[in-house]
Amino acid sequence: MGGAASYFATAASLYDQVNLVAVVGSDFPQEHLAFLKSRRINLDGLQIQDGPTFRWVGSYHMDMNGRDTLDTQLGVYADFHPVLPTTYLESDLLFLANIQPELQMEVLQAAPRARLTVLDTMELWIMTARAQLTEVIKRVDVLLMSEEEVRQYTGKASIFTGVRDLFALGLRYVIVKQGSYGALLFGTDGTYFSAPTYPLEEVSDPTGAGDSFAGGFLGYLSTVTPLESGHYSPDDLKRAVVHGNLIGSFACEDFSITRLRSLTINEVADRYKHLVEYSHFDPTWRIS
Amino acid sequence: MGGAASYFATAASLYDQVNLVAVVGSDFPQEHLAFLKSRRINLDGLQIQDGPTFRWVGSYHMDMNGRDTLDTQLGVYADFHPVLPTTYLESDLLFLANIQPELQMEVLQAAPRARLTVLDTMELWIMTARAQLTEVIKRVDVLLMSEEEVRQYTGKASIFTGVRDLFALGLRYVIVKQGSYGALLFGTDGTYFSAPTYPLEEVSDPTGAGDSFAGGFLGYLSTVTPLESGHYSPDDLKRAVVHGNLIGSFACEDFSITRLRSLTINEVADRYKHLVEYSHFDPTWRIS
Repeated sequence: MGGAASYFATAASLYDQVNLVAVVGSDFPQEHLAFLKSRRINLDGLQIQDGPTFRWVGSYHMDMNGRDTLDTQLGVYADFHPVLPTTYLESDLLFLANIQPELQMEVLQAAPRARLTVLDTMELWIMTARAQLTEVIKRVDVLLMSEEEVRQYTGKASIFTGVRDLFALGLRYVIVKQGSYGALLFGTDGTYFSAPTYPLEEVSDPTGAGDSFAGGFLGYLSTVTPLESGHYSPDDLKRAVVHGNLIGSFACEDFSITRLRSLTINEVADRYKHLVEYSHFDPTWRIS
Repeated sequence: MGGAASYFATAASLYDQVNLVAVVGSDFPQEHLAFLKSRRINLDGLQIQDGPTFRWVGSYHMDMNGRDTLDTQLGVYADFHPVLPTTYLESDLLFLANIQPELQMEVLQAAPRARLTVLDTMELWIMTARAQLTEVIKRVDVLLMSEEEVRQYTGKASIFTGVRDLFALGLRYVIVKQGSYGALLFGTDGTYFSAPTYPLEEVSDPTGAGDSFAGGFLGYLSTVTPLESGHYSPDDLKRAVVHGNLIGSFACEDFSITRLRSLTINEVADRYKHLVEYSHFDPTWRIS
């Protein structure tokens, strides 16, 4: 079981109700559907089409950061058009997982009342659908990109310079994912935050780590009250990035969504406390 | 002006007196010697030999982490044997910068009274002088290695597993350098610390960043009082790693040791405070 929607929804449903929009084929196992239904995941927006479910096969490099795609089978994905049930339209938070930018735009336009919109993407769209991707970037609040994707999209070697180019498109926040090294949060309000990752003895399967990150990030935000302006405070956004990293670390501990299925919010709380110990240092300057 | 000794000594002399052991050729500019003399750097252990000074030429990749060596000229380095003046023998802290392991062993044996010994190395010695390098590792307290070097030396994909193999050789601490991503501190006492890097808009020249890190690390430790056992506390070692990262960040801001020459301890203090802001997050778990 895989796919951005599976990882994201399983992760975010630890925190709150998730309204899922996706497509699977008629080969999608009933037990997977039963699992999703057993969580706080609304499947009214899930389409089941005749044909095979999307499949991706890849191989990870020794450092578990880089990977090679070995096979991609679009299946029912090829003709997918997302449809949002009207019950979804009260959602405060919208995550546009990594699909064709045109489809992300359709979802975005169908959900104009979201308080915070978060966009994920991948190298493929940067290379093959740059103009369409740019239109979506212009209309969302937060962009998730890996360091390499920021360099690819902006052509700038410096992440800081690249992020400024992205801000010029109208974004309020950019989260730069650094694989096993953590994530950076940049805000147009001057926010800068370098979030550490929880250290893992062994990485079993980094697939879906980015979607699990998004699940933790948006899941945490769904538990907090925004400011009067309707925006989230920089401190809440920082905490949300930490939640994202923690959920991403759990996701990597086992194949598929296995670890996320058994994960409890108390386990996340324990790891949160450990991450404070592992990454905070004495804030006092001690040289006179 | 370059070389591990130049970067290390310039950095560490911000904190304390440095006793330098090195060799340069007769072509080494007088102005460089005059600069070193102007700092708290004792040059009694510096040999000036007939012949050319060591030179290294390299090219950095776009992400400024990877690099290719274009040319290495050993010059007077080829026949170098370090000699420690007797005035050096009271030094509490010993840094063995990256040279042939046999020469590192000579220095180590000549300075048996050091309270803390810190070893740096590089891929070349892992590949060509593994047995000799292992002998030095067995006799020092702290090893500095990049992530790639830990993988090369131990053959383990997981840094945690690799570090355990290194601990089996007798080390007390391993510092895993992660380039622009920071550094990890591992201790046999269970210490684990992930130190963030100070964010740089532009990296001008990462050459010497590792030696500058060592200068900040050992420089900071030279300002603190060790425990009654003669060891440094884990909190001091964590702070020392932060100092290492900060000094490394300054070193990357300009070519050669240019930025380190003008650097003041007050600038380091400012950056220390900013790094707390940039990397610490609310330690309280806020989900009920």
